[in-house]
Amino acid sequence: MENAVLIAEVLKFTVIAAGLLIGLGALGTAIGFAILGGKFIEGAARQPELTPMLQTKMFIVAGLLDAVPMIGVAIALLLLFANPLLASLGG
Amino acid sequence: MENAVLIAEVLKFTVIAAGLLIGLGALGTAIGFAILGGKFIEGAARQPELTPMLQTKMFIVAGLLDAVPMIGVAIALLLLFANPLLASLGG
Amino acid sequence: MENAVLIAEVLKFTVIAAGLLIGLGALGTAIGFAILGGKFIEGAARQPELTPMLQTKMFIVAGLLDAVPMIGVAIALLLLFANPLLASLGG
Amino acid sequence: MENAVLIAEVLKFTVIAAGLLIGLGALGTAIGFAILGGKFIEGAARQPELTPMLQTKMFIVAGLLDAVPMIGVAIALLLLFANPLLASLGG
Amino acid sequence: MENAVLIAEVLKFTVIAAGLLIGLGALGTAIGFAILGGKFIEGAARQPELTPMLQTKMFIVAGLLDAVPMIGVAIALLLLFANPLLASLGG
Amino acid sequence: MENAVLIAEVLKFTVIAAGLLIGLGALGTAIGFAILGGKFIEGAARQPELTPMLQTKMFIVAGLLDAVPMIGVAIALLLLFANPLLASLGG
Amino acid sequence: MENAVLIAEVLKFTVIAAGLLIGLGALGTAIGFAILGGKFIEGAARQPELTPMLQTKMFIVAGLLDAVPMIGVAIALLLLFANPLLASLGG
Amino acid sequence: MENAVLIAEVLKFTVIAAGLLIGLGALGTAIGFAILGGKFIEGAARQPELTPMLQTKMFIVAGLLDAVPMIGVAIALLLLFANPLLASLGG
Amino acid sequence: MENAVLIAEVLKFTVIAAGLLIGLGALGTAIGFAILGGKFIEGAARQPELTPMLQTKMFIVAGLLDAVPMIGVAIALLLLFANPLLASLGG
Amino acid sequence: MENAVLIAEVLKFTVIAAGLLIGLGALGTAIGFAILGGKFIEGAARQPELTPMLQTKMFIVAGLLDAVPMIGVAIALLLLFANPLLASLGG
Amino acid sequence: MENAVLIAEVLKFTVIAAGLLIGLGALGTAIGFAILGGKFIEGAARQPELTPMLQTKMFIVAGLLDAVPMIGVAIALLLLFANPLLASLGG
Amino acid sequence: MENAVLIAEVLKFTVIAAGLLIGLGALGTAIGFAILGGKFIEGAARQPELTPMLQTKMFIVAGLLDAVPMIGVAIALLLLFANPLLASLGG
Amino acid sequence: MENAVLIAEVLKFTVIAAGLLIGLGALGTAIGFAILGGKFIEGAARQPELTPMLQTKMFIVAGLLDAVPMIGVAIALLLLFANPLLASLGG
Amino acid sequence: MENAVLIAEVLKFTVIAAGLLIGLGALGTAIGFAILGGKFIEGAARQPELTPMLQTKMFIVAGLLDAVPMIGVAIALLLLFANPLLASLGG
Repeated sequence: MENAVLIAEVLKFTVIAAGLLIGLGALGTAIGFAILGGKFIEGAARQPELTPMLQTKMFIVAGLLDAVPMIGVAIALLLLFANPLLASLGG
Repeated sequence: MENAVLIAEVLKFTVIAAGLLIGLGALGTAIGFAILGGKFIEGAARQPELTPMLQTKMFIVAGLLDAVPMIGVAIALLLLFANPLLASLGG
Repeated sequence: MENAVLIAEVLKFTVIAAGLLIGLGALGTAIGFAILGGKFIEGAARQPELTPMLQTKMFIVAGLLDAVPMIGVAIALLLLFANPLLASLGG
Repeated sequence: MENAVLIAEVLKFTVIAAGLLIGLGALGTAIGFAILGGKFIEGAARQPELTPMLQTKMFIVAGLLDAVPMIGVAIALLLLFANPLLASLGG
Repeated sequence: MENAVLIAEVLKFTVIAAGLLIGLGALGTAIGFAILGGKFIEGAARQPELTPMLQTKMFIVAGLLDAVPMIGVAIALLLLFANPLLASLGG
Repeated sequence: MENAVLIAEVLKFTVIAAGLLIGLGALGTAIGFAILGGKFIEGAARQPELTPMLQTKMFIVAGLLDAVPMIGVAIALLLLFANPLLASLGG
Repeated sequence: MENAVLIAEVLKFTVIAAGLLIGLGALGTAIGFAILGGKFIEGAARQPELTPMLQTKMFIVAGLLDAVPMIGVAIALLLLFANPLLASLGG
Repeated sequence: MENAVLIAEVLKFTVIAAGLLIGLGALGTAIGFAILGGKFIEGAARQPELTPMLQTKMFIVAGLLDAVPMIGVAIALLLLFANPLLASLGG
Repeated sequence: MENAVLIAEVLKFTVIAAGLLIGLGALGTAIGFAILGGKFIEGAARQPELTPMLQTKMFIVAGLLDAVPMIGVAIALLLLFANPLLASLGG
Repeated sequence: MENAVLIAEVLKFTVIAAGLLIGLGALGTAIGFAILGGKFIEGAARQPELTPMLQTKMFIVAGLLDAVPMIGVAIALLLLFANPLLASLGG
Repeated sequence: MENAVLIAEVLKFTVIAAGLLIGLGALGTAIGFAILGGKFIEGAARQPELTPMLQTKMFIVAGLLDAVPMIGVAIALLLLFANPLLASLGG
Repeated sequence: MENAVLIAEVLKFTVIAAGLLIGLGALGTAIGFAILGGKFIEGAARQPELTPMLQTKMFIVAGLLDAVPMIGVAIALLLLFANPLLASLGG
Repeated sequence: MENAVLIAEVLKFTVIAAGLLIGLGALGTAIGFAILGGKFIEGAARQPELTPMLQTKMFIVAGLLDAVPMIGVAIALLLLFANPLLASLGG
Repeated sequence: MENAVLIAEVLKFTVIAAGLLIGLGALGTAIGFAILGGKFIEGAARQPELTPMLQTKMFIVAGLLDAVPMIGVAIALLLLFANPLLASLGG
C-alpha cells in the first residue's frame, strides 16, 4: 500500500510532464507551420507553375519540422500507457 | 478509502494538464491560422483566378498545422474519460 | 463525508482549469480574428468586386481558427456540468 | 457546517476564475477591436463610397471575434449565480 | 461566527478579482482607444470633409470595444455590492 | 474583537486591490494619451488650420479612453472610504 | 495592544501599495512624456512658427496624461497620512 | 518591546517600497530623457539656429517628465526620515 | 523499502527533466525549421534551377540544427529507460 | 539582544533595497547614455562644426538623465552608512 | 543508509541541471543555426558560383557556434554517468 | 554566538545583493557599449578624418555611461570587504 | 557525518550554479555567433576577394566573444571537480 | 561545529551569486561583441583600406565593454577562493 503512494507521486509529475511535452510541441508546430505555409502560399501565388515542386519541398521541410514534436508526442503516450519508470518501483 | 485520496491527488493534476494541453493548443492554432489565413486571403485578393488552387494548398498546410494540437485534444479527452494512469493505482 | 473533501479538492482545480481553457481561447480568438478580419477588410476595400468570394474564404479559415478553442469551450462546459473525473471518486 | 467550509473553498477559486475569464476576454477584445476598427476606419477614409459594405463586413468579423469572449462572460455569470459545481457537494 | 470566517475568506479573493477585472479592462481600453483614436485623428486630418462619417463609425467600433470591459465593470460592482456567492454560505 | 481580525484581513487585500486598480489605470492612460496626443500634435503641425476640429475630436476620444480607468479610480476610492464588503462582516 | 498588531499588518500592505501606486505612475509618465515631448520637439523643429500653438496643445494633452497618475499620488499620500482604513479598526 | 517588533515589521516593507519608488523612477527617467534628449539633439543638429528655442521647450517637457518621479523620491525620503505610519503604532 | 522512497524522489524530478529536454527542443526545432525552410522555399521559388543544390545545402544545415535537440531526445530516453543515476542508489 | 534580531531583520531588507536602487539605476543609465550618446556621435559625424554646441546640449540632458539615478545612489549609501530607520528601533 | 538520502538529494538537483544544460543549448543552437543557415542559403541562391566557399566558411562559424553547447552536453553526460560530486560524499 | 547567526543572515543577503549590483551593471554596460561603439565605428568608417574627434567624444559619453555601474561595483566591493552594516550588529 | 549533510547542501546549489553558468553561456554564444557569422557570410558573398581578411577579423571578434563564456565553463568545471568551497567546511 | 552550519549557509548563496555574476556577464558580452563585431565586419567589408584603423578602435571599445563583466569574473573568483565574508564568521 505504501508503494501506491510512491506511484501516485510519480504519476502526478508524469501527467504534468506529458502536458508540457505535447503543449509546447503544439504551440511550436502551430506557429512554425503558419510561418512556413505562409511562405509556401506566397510562392505559389506568385509562380503558380512552380507549385508542385514547392509543395514537395515544403513536405520535406515539414517532415524535419515535425520530427522532434512527434517524438515528444510518442514519449508522452509512452509515459501515459507504459510508464517505464514504474518498473523501478516494482509497480 | 486511502486509495481514493491517491486518485484524487492524481486527478487534480490531470485536470490542470488537460487545461494546459487544450489551452496552449487553442492559443497556437488561433494565432497560426490567423497568420496563414491572412496570407491566403491576400493571395486570393491579388490573383482571384488562383483561389481554388491556393485553397487546396492552404488545406494541406492546415492539416499539418492542426496535427499536434489535435493529438493534444485527443490525449486531454483520454485523460478525462479513460485515464490510463489510474490502472496503476488499481482505481 | 470524507469523500466530499476529495471532490471539493478536485472541483477547485477544475474551475481554474475551465477559466484557463476559455480565457486563453478568448484571448487567442480575439487577436486572431482581428488579424484575419483586418486582412479581409483591406482586401475588400481594395477590390470590392471580390468581396463575396473573399468572405467565403474567410469563413473557411474562421472555421479552422475556431475549431480548437471551441473544443476547449465544450470541454470546459463538460467539466462544469458533467465532470467525468468525479465518477472515479464515486461522487 | 463542515460542508460550508468546502463550499467556501470552491467559491474562492470560482471568483478568481471568473475574474480571469472576463479580464482576459476584456483585454483581448479591447485590443482586437482596436486593430480591426483601425483597419475599418482607414478603409473608410480612403474609399468613402465603400463604407456601408465595409461596415457590414466588419460586423460579421466582430461577431466571430466576440464569440468566445462572450461565452466566457456567460460562463463566468453562470459560475457566480448558478454554480453547477456546488450540486456535487450537496450545497 | 464561524460563518464570518468563511465569508471573510471569500471576500478577500473577491476584492482581488474585482481589482483584476477593472484593472485589466482599464489597461486594455486605454491602449485600445489610443490605437483606434489615433487612426481616427489621422483620417480626420487627411480628409476633413469625411470627419462626421468617420466619427460615427468610430463610435460604432467604440461600442464593440467597450462591451466586454464594461461587463467586467458591472460584474465587479455586483461582486462588491450584491455578492451572489454569499447566498451559498447563508451570509 | 475576533471580528476586527477578519476586517483587518479583508482590508489588507483591499489596499493592494486599490493600488492595482489605480496603478494599472495610471500606466495605461499615461501611455495611451502619449500615443493619442502624439498623433494629435503631428496632425496639428501638418495642418494648423484643422487644429480646433482635431482637438474636439481628441477630447471625444479622450473621454472614451478615460472612462474605464476613471471607474477604476472611483471604485478604489469607494473601497477605501466606504467599503461595501465590510457590511457583510457586520463591521 | 492586539489592535496594534492588526494595524501593523494593514500598514505593511499600505506602504507596498503606495510604492506601487507612485512607482507605476512615475514609470508611465516618464515614458509617456518622453514620447509626447519628442513629437512636440520634432514638430517645433520643423515648423518654428507653430511652436506656441503646439505648446498649448501639448499642455492640454499633458493635463489628460497626468490626471490618473496624479490621482494615484494623491491617494498614496492619503494612505500614508490619513489612512481611512484604520478607522474601521478603531485605530 | 512588543511594539518594536511591529515597527521593525513595518520598516522592512518601508525600505523595499522606497527602493521600488526610486528604482522604478530612475529607470523611467533615464530611458525617458534618453528618448527626449535624442530628439532634441537631432533637432539641434539639423537646425542649429533653433537650438535655444528647442532647449527651452525641452526644459518644459523635462519638468513634466520629472514631476511624478520626483514626488516618488520625496515620498521615499519622507518614509525613511519621518515615517508617518509609525505614528499610528505610537512609535 | 526506504530505498524506494529515494528512487521515487529522483524519478519525479527525472520525468520533469525529460519533459523539459524534449519540450524545449521541440519548440526550438519547430521554429528553427520554419525560419530555415521559409528561406529555402523563397530561394527555390525565385531560382527554380538552383533548387537541388539549395536542398542539399539545407539538409547540411538541418543536420547541424537537429544535432543538439536530438542528443537531448536521446538523453531523455536514456533517463526514462536506463537511468544511470539509480545505480548510485543501488536501485 | 532581542533588539539585535530586529535590526538584523531590517538590515537584510536594506541591503537588497540598496542593490535594487543602484542596480536598476545602473541598467537605466547605461542604456540611456548609449541611446543619447549614439545620437550625439551621429550628429557630430554629420556636422563636425556643430560638435561643441551639441556636446554642451548633451551635458545638459545628461544632467537631467543622471538626476534620479544619482539620488538613488545617494539614498543607497545613506541606507548603508547612516540608516535613519534604525533610530526608530533605538539601535 | 543516511548517506543514500544525501546522494538522492544531490541527484535530484543534478538531473534538473542536466535538463537545463542541454535544453538551453538545444534551444540556442536550433535558433542560431536557423539564422546562420538562412543567411547561407540566401547567399548561395544569389551567387551559386560562391557556394563551396560560403559552405566552408559556414562550417567554421558552425564550429564556433556549437562549441559551448557541446561542452554543456559533455558536462551533462559527465554528471549523469560519472558524477564527480558524489566522491565528496563517499558515494 | 547568537550574534554570529545574525551576521550570517545579513551576509547571505549581502552576497546576493553584490551579485545583483555587478551582474546588472555588467549586462547594462556590455549592451550599452555595444550600441555606442557600433555608432562610433560606423561614423569612423564613413568619415575617417573625423575619427580622433569622435573618439574623444565617445570617451566623454563612456565616462557618463560607466559612472553609475562603477559606483555599483565600488559599493559591492565595500559590502564584501568592509560591510558597514555589521557595525550596527556589533560584529 | 553531520559534515556530510552540509557538504551535500552546498553541492546541490553548486550543480545548479554550474548548469546556469554553462547554460546561459551556451545560449549567448549560439545566438551571438549566429549574428556575427551571418554578417561575415553576407560580407563574403558580396566581396569574395576580401574573404580571407574578413575571416581573420571574425576570429579576433570570436576570441573576444568567447572569452567570458569560456571562463564560465572553466569555473563550472572547477566547481564540479575541485570545489574550493569545500575546503572551508573541512570536506 | 555550529559555525560550520553558518559557513555552509553563506557558501550556498555565494555559489549562486558567482553563477549569476559570470552567467549574466557571459550573456551580455556574447551578445554585445556580436553587435559590435558585426558593425566592424560590415565597415571592413565596405572600406577595406580602413580596416587597421577600425580594428584599433574596436579594441578600445572592447576594453570598455569588457571592463565591468571582467570585474564581475574577478569578484566571483574572489568569492570562491578567498571569501572575505567568512572572516566575519571567524571561519
